[in-house]
Amino acid sequence: MSFVVMITGIPGVGKSTITKMALKITKAKFRLINFGDLMFNVAVEKGLVKHRDEVRKLDPITQKEIQLEVARRILSMAEKEPILIDTHATIKTPKGYLLGFPLEVIETIRPDFIVIIEATPSEILGRRLRDLKRDRDVETEEQIQRHQDLNRAAAITYAMHSDALIKVIENHEDKGLDEAVAELVEILDMAVMDHA
Amino acid sequence: MSFVVMITGIPGVGKSTITKMALKITKAKFRLINFGDLMFNVAVEKGLVKHRDEVRKLDPITQKEIQLEVARRILSMAEKEPILIDTHATIKTPKGYLLGFPLEVIETIRPDFIVIIEATPSEILGRRLRDLKRDRDVETEEQIQRHQDLNRAAAITYAMHSDALIKVIENHEDKGLDEAVAELVEILDMAVMDHA
Amino acid sequence: MSFVVMITGIPGVGKSTITKMALKITKAKFRLINFGDLMFNVAVEKGLVKHRDEVRKLDPITQKEIQLEVARRILSMAEKEPILIDTHATIKTPKGYLLGFPLEVIETIRPDFIVIIEATPSEILGRRLRDLKRDRDVETEEQIQRHQDLNRAAAITYAMHSDALIKVIENHEDKGLDEAVAELVEILDMAVMDHA
Repeated sequence: MSFVVMITGIPGVGKSTITKMALKITKAKFRLINFGDLMFNVAVEKGLVKHRDEVRKLDPITQKEIQLEVARRILSMAEKEPILIDTHATIKTPKGYLLGFPLEVIETIRPDFIVIIEATPSEILGRRLRDLKRDRDVETEEQIQRHQDLNRAAAITYAMHSDALIKVIENHEDKGLDEAVAELVEILDMAVMDHA
Repeated sequence: MSFVVMITGIPGVGKSTITKMALKITKAKFRLINFGDLMFNVAVEKGLVKHRDEVRKLDPITQKEIQLEVARRILSMAEKEPILIDTHATIKTPKGYLLGFPLEVIETIRPDFIVIIEATPSEILGRRLRDLKRDRDVETEEQIQRHQDLNRAAAITYAMHSDALIKVIENHEDKGLDEAVAELVEILDMAVMDHA
Repeated sequence: MSFVVMITGIPGVGKSTITKMALKITKAKFRLINFGDLMFNVAVEKGLVKHRDEVRKLDPITQKEIQLEVARRILSMAEKEPILIDTHATIKTPKGYLLGFPLEVIETIRPDFIVIIEATPSEILGRRLRDLKRDRDVETEEQIQRHQDLNRAAAITYAMHSDALIKVIENHEDKGLDEAVAELVEILDMAVMDHA
């Protein structure tokens, strides 16, 4: 019996805020996992890196081995407690869009839910502009829309290789954060039944 | 020699109407299959359910076994006559979007064509509002667009695992139903050549 | 060590122009491959066809064998020099959209990059109308948008089965071709490091 939720959303959509608020409310006790953190831990254990930035400079084959090791660890964690993976469906890098989860990794983790937080491109643009502290890529609304489109397609492919359900949560200005949080809580609370 | 067409489209797009009209016109003699009906039949045979609503309450592994059994039956039906499967690319459930066809199922059926009936979100919204008899989810145009986007991505994934062609038929108000029906008939008529 | 870039984009987006200009500038010496040309060569060698038009009339199983043979040849070419494949993510045929690369073919070639050239539907429509010499399908902006959407989803599926990065290059009127060319050159120049 295991319960794994992947939560995704492009920068500026409000993913971290909604996740934190939902974890405070949900009756289920989730372990929150940042995939990148775990990759760093594994790479350090293997003596491959000392600093976090070095992970993505490792050769692709080594990176994939690390990803698979992380996937296996998540799988064994999931036997003990429900898991929430804070992650990205695709990552926009200077070289291009990178799938957050290669085929073997998604087939190993097999999440129950892939949650996508979405907002309109203009809402996301506005939030990015207001959030000056964080060093974020300046994108046009067209580019923001494209990134969200690619993430939808990625979610479909992930679902195809894991049987996950895809839950889209809209985080609109006029809707209020509470409603978006409540929708995530509803998904997370299913873990209580599942692990009961 | 077999010929399998999957016809998809979100609620309110006019799929049932177009399908019925096209089946009356086409020169090929198709067997029309509703995937959900067949699943119910198999579940009853196995003594698992008595009422149709119980099927989706079965545990996921059992549901998948039933889906695969249905896929195998469709495959053997397709040896005798051309098959038209009335279905959904993705199904919007309260828990999230569910892929209509898991990987193993699409790899078993291997449809020749995946037809998607599409219309603009405002056309679909209008049709849903006029169609008060049916108990349909109230969605915004944004949500309707998203569902159609997810279906396009799902069709691509299905095509990847079946070599199907993806035929999009637009069912616009100003276009007239006849033209949409004619486009479907053109696909269905290929069965005549194929089974000749 | 190999480096394979697939370049895609729907008719009228400016793919050929950008590709030609980028190949003149890049420091890496690429072999430009047209997948369709190679398929024709293989079919001729096998004594299956005499004219190019005959290739797509071959039965699907034979076509797939030819595609796989082409994929294997590209793989062996890629051991000697960086490869740029000029191709389509999906092909719009009268019967429907066809995936440019079936699963086995993409898993064989495993490109490093999938480049998508994009523009707005109105820009593409305008270019098609001005480009009267070429016999191009007349599409609405809605259809052009749909084709680009399907190509994005196809690129995601290809990336899933190859670990390719997806680079989207916008070719907008007000941006200037030079910038689009420079973005492609940046990708192509990575071959120099790779093959160093």
